[in-house]
Order: sequence, then C-alpha cells, then structure tokens
Amino acid sequence: MIKILVDCFGGDHCPQAPVEGALKALATYPDLYILLTGDEAILQKELEGKAYDKSRLEIVHAPEVIGCDEKPTDVVRLKRNSSMMKGIILLRDRDDIAALVSTGSTGALVTGALVRLGRIPGVIRPAFCPLLPTMDGGIVGICDSGANVEVTPAHLRQFAIMASLYLENVYGVSKPRVALLNVGKEAEKGDVIRQEAYKLLQETPSLNFVGNMESRDLLSGSYDVVVADGFSGNVLVKTTEGTALELLKKLKKEIFSKTIYKLGALLMKRMFADMKEFMNYQNYGGSVLLGTSKVVVKGHGSSKAVAVEKCIEQAYRMELSRLSEKIEAEIVKYEHYDV
Amino acid sequence: MIKILVDCFGGDHCPQAPVEGALKALATYPDLYILLTGDEAILQKELEGKAYDKSRLEIVHAPEVIGCDEKPTDVVRLKRNSSMMKGIILLRDRDDIAALVSTGSTGALVTGALVRLGRIPGVIRPAFCPLLPTMDGGIVGICDSGANVEVTPAHLRQFAIMASLYLENVYGVSKPRVALLNVGKEAEKGDVIRQEAYKLLQETPSLNFVGNMESRDLLSGSYDVVVADGFSGNVLVKTTEGTALELLKKLKKEIFSKTIYKLGALLMKRMFADMKEFMNYQNYGGSVLLGTSKVVVKGHGSSKAVAVEKCIEQAYRMELSRLSEKIEAEIVKYEHYDV
Repeated sequence: MIKILVDCFGGDHCPQAPVEGALKALATYPDLYILLTGDEAILQKELEGKAYDKSRLEIVHAPEVIGCDEKPTDVVRLKRNSSMMKGIILLRDRDDIAALVSTGSTGALVTGALVRLGRIPGVIRPAFCPLLPTMDGGIVGICDSGANVEVTPAHLRQFAIMASLYLENVYGVSKPRVALLNVGKEAEKGDVIRQEAYKLLQETPSLNFVGNMESRDLLSGSYDVVVADGFSGNVLVKTTEGTALELLKKLKKEIFSKTIYKLGALLMKRMFADMKEFMNYQNYGGSVLLGTSKVVVKGHGSSKAVAVEKCIEQAYRMELSRLSEKIEAEIVKYEHYDV
Repeated sequence: MIKILVDCFGGDHCPQAPVEGALKALATYPDLYILLTGDEAILQKELEGKAYDKSRLEIVHAPEVIGCDEKPTDVVRLKRNSSMMKGIILLRDRDDIAALVSTGSTGALVTGALVRLGRIPGVIRPAFCPLLPTMDGGIVGICDSGANVEVTPAHLRQFAIMASLYLENVYGVSKPRVALLNVGKEAEKGDVIRQEAYKLLQETPSLNFVGNMESRDLLSGSYDVVVADGFSGNVLVKTTEGTALELLKKLKKEIFSKTIYKLGALLMKRMFADMKEFMNYQNYGGSVLLGTSKVVVKGHGSSKAVAVEKCIEQAYRMELSRLSEKIEAEIVKYEHYDV
C-alpha cells in the first residue's frame, strides 16, 4: 500500500478539487491509500454521498487556516495544525507515509519541507521541477523554477542530476537531454555562475548534457531537462503559460468578432478543443519538489480535481520508482565538489 | 536633416533587407538622410535599378566581414573596417550623424557601443529595451533584455527611468506604468537585488512604479515598462516570442491534418493572417540600446526589410524627441544614490 497525504485547503477550489482528485486516484490505483488533511467536519461533508473504498481513505483533522498574507516562516512556526503543516509533520514522523500533495502556498510548502522534513543526504537545495508539453508531443522538465532565487554552479549541477533521474525513472525518458538555460548557445555566455555550471555539467559523466538552451527553444522538443536558477526558471515557465493563455484568449475574442469566423471555428471545434487540452497545464501534473527526504508535489493554486489527481499520480509513481534512493546514490558521487 | 547609419551586413537577409528597409524609410521621411555601411561594390549592385532620392543616400565603404564565432572584444579591436564598427566610429566622430541601426551581432554591438561610443553622462550601464505587443493592442517595453547579465538595484532604477522616458517620448505613453519583474507580487519577493530595487523604484518620484510583475502577466496590458536584469529579461522576451511561434506552428500543423479543418481555416483566413501579423515581432521594431551617448537600434538577426524600416523609424523618432537629453536630465537627479 502506498500512502499519500493530500492537503485539502489552500488552493482556489478547496476542498472540492483535492477531495475529488483523491477519490479519482483511489479508483485508479488499488494499492493507493489517501490521508486527507483539513477540517474534519468540512471534509466529512464533502465526502458525503460519494462512492469510494472507505478502507483506503482517512481524514486527518487539521483545522487551522493559513491566511494569504502570512509569512512562510510564521506558518511553519505557528500553524502546526494547518492542513499543510500537519501534512508535512506527519510525512516526517510516519515511516508508512510516502508523500504529500498540496495546492497551497508555495513559500510555506518550501519552507515547511526544508525546516520540518529535511533533505536527501547530499542534496544542498531542493528544487521545483514542473513539466511543460513540447510541440512534438513530449514533455520538458524545468529545474529549478522557484524554490531558490539564488544559486551556485554546484546547485545547478544537482538540479540537473535530480531532474534527469526524475524524467528517466518516472516518465521513462531514456538518457534525458539536459540543457542549461542561458542567453546564448555558446559556452562562454551568461554570468560566471552559468559559465562555471556549464563546465561542471560537461564534467558529469552520468548526465547527457547537450549545452546551453535559449529560452525561445523550450517547446521545440530538443530538450528533456532545462536547468535554471529559480528566478529565471520561474520566468521561463510562467511566461510560457502566460503567453499560451493570452493567445488563446485573443483567438477566442477574434473568433467571436465576426460571423464567418464563428462558422469557421465551428468546423474546427474539435481541433480547438484538442489545442486547449494540449496547452492546459492542469494535464501535466504539479511541480514536484526534488531533493526533499520524502516526496512533495506542489499543484497549481488553480488546480481542479483532474490536476490534483495528476499530482497524486506523480507522487505515487515517484514513490514506486524509488526516486529518492536513486538521487541519493547519484548525488553522493559528486558531493566533494559541492563546497 | 536627420542622418542615420544603417549597417548592411550581419543579419540573415543582408544586404537586401537593410538596403530595402533604408529605401522605404527614405521614401516616408523627407528629412531623413541614410548612410549605408558595408562593401561598396555589393551595395552599389544592390541599389542598381532602384528608385530613390540619391541626394539623401550615401555608401560608406567598410569591406571587413565579422565572423560568427568572433569574440565581441576582438571585433571591436580588430575589425574597425567592418560595417558595424565603421558605423559606430562614424557615429562617435561626426556630430551631424544621429543614430546607427544594425542587425548584426548583439555582443559586438554592445561592446562596440560601450568602448567606442560611450554613455550618456550619469548612465552606469546602457540597456536594451525591445517592445512586445500586448493583448489590448498596446505595447510593453522590457529593459534590460540582454546587455547586462548582472545588475545592481541602482542599475535597475536607471533602466526604469530610461525606458519610462522612451515610452513616453517616443510612443506617447503618458505616465508609463513601470513594473519590476519578479517571482511574486509582494514587495519582499525575490533576491536582495529585487528587494532593494523595489524600494528604490518606490522612492523615485518621476516614476509611475506599480509594483512587481509576475511573468505570466507580461502581455496583459497592465504594464508599459518592465524592468529586469538582462538575463531574466532576455528569458522573458525570448520565451514570449518562442511560445507564440511554436503555437502558431502547431496550429498550422493541426489545420493541415484534416480536410474539415482546412475548410474552417479558409473561412478564418483573414483572422489568422491578422493574428500572425499581430504576433510578428518584425512589426514592433528593434531593441533600442538606451543610455549610449547616441542612438543605437539593434534589429533582430532575422529582420526583413519591413523590420529594418521600423528600426530606422525608431531611431528617427528617438532623435526627434531628443530622448538622450531627457535621459541625462533625469538620471543626474539620482546620481548620488548610484554608488
């Protein structure tokens, strides 16, 4: 049995989305056991009348609510009975629980995971690795995308190792092509951190490092893993999502501006629906936090049930593939560089 | 007469695109005078049979060619007779020449401008400010987008002042809304540089600073100027362009996959053409280099004639608006902070 905690409060569609997502995942995986964290009465009510295997679902009462403006450090210190912090503490304390899925505050989740959960031995900094769809039907992982706004070359190398193992073991990508996000292709581009990281990545035999990537090539399908500091990685991911969304909005507006366009769009209805699905980041799961001692998956704040379901699936597959052990075994080989 | 140098070698469509772009601009602006730099024989041949006002066009012979792999510093030092370096040196030495437009190597252009041309008094670092179209039909300037991969809060404030004056004086945007690119909206987000810059921007009375911007909101139309370090600004601009291009490609591929889609697309032909034009960055001119003692405009390497024409138009309007003087007058007020 694989036991996964689902934080039921914090996202835009709580608790409906996490609860429904959890029930969907339960129905798919017979060896999955879910612990929902949050206010028990509210969760009981949400579950009322729904069909699911009651022997594989349990509620962990955690009534405290995290406010929008609360500082991550305050949340970690003061809100131990919030749905997120209770989840993190249980994950740390109970050997039988494998993972936590949350759509709550990113800052609180990262801080909580760092302070209360700890890292895989050898890992300097855990990092987020969300996935985006590429135009050839594949996926690309971006690591880091927001956990660390400042990094060193050694951090970047660890991000590369962790994300590469993630894509390989959880998504079956053989020898993931790893690129370094930079302002140009040439090895000497970027600041000193990028130049040093380029060398380190080149010298790491277990990586299939293919060089620098310019951001306009992210969706081309030429890369499986893109390594970045958390600041520019965040810009990379959010700009891609934002541009896609804005263009879809614009397209829709244009279509509704003329009858003949509406007619044309009618013939292409199926195609537009497919495109929309293709670009819907809710279909690609959450942003996993690589490098923490146990699996933590962060879903978009706007996650609906299907997105939460995907996050649970990711956590499940990460645990099944024993990713943490593989990361530890690999990271330790290069630890002596990381000073 | 406003005299502008056009570097005719270095881009993908050289010398056709710069020459044609120059002739188009000459036809539009009766008080424009163009100096084409490059190999005289090739340029003469390119001009052959074309109609234009010969009294307002001159060729400056500059036969040296810059190789793709040449280091910017080598180009500046050794290639004084290349079309780009000759342009920069002439711009410096001749009071009657106002600007240089180039589609050549970005690195060589920045280095050349810094070393040979110099800065507006008080400006610490010149910065690129390309424009992107927003979804409400406006434009947004991103400064810096690649000239400075490492910055200080004082640099970021200067970028804000320069870009704000640029949008106001050259594009008629009243009180440009200035935002700082960051990983979240709150003032305390990002690294120390961002946190300090936030405060500096807030304390600058001539700026209409509206706070942090998350990259997914770039095209929303809520901002006129986005201030960034050259690394993440570059990621912001190129990711936007890349995502738009990849989505258009995908759309095209889907349309051609089924007869009924092709039929629908036929009805929407005009709309798709409009969308393509709207997203075509060639229509929004080049990336101006703000802060150099004279106007320098960098066009995309892939610029066609219309894009070069837009770059010349930008340079012309920058000179007409006396932007450099306005930047100097404003920058100098805050110089004492910039240590």
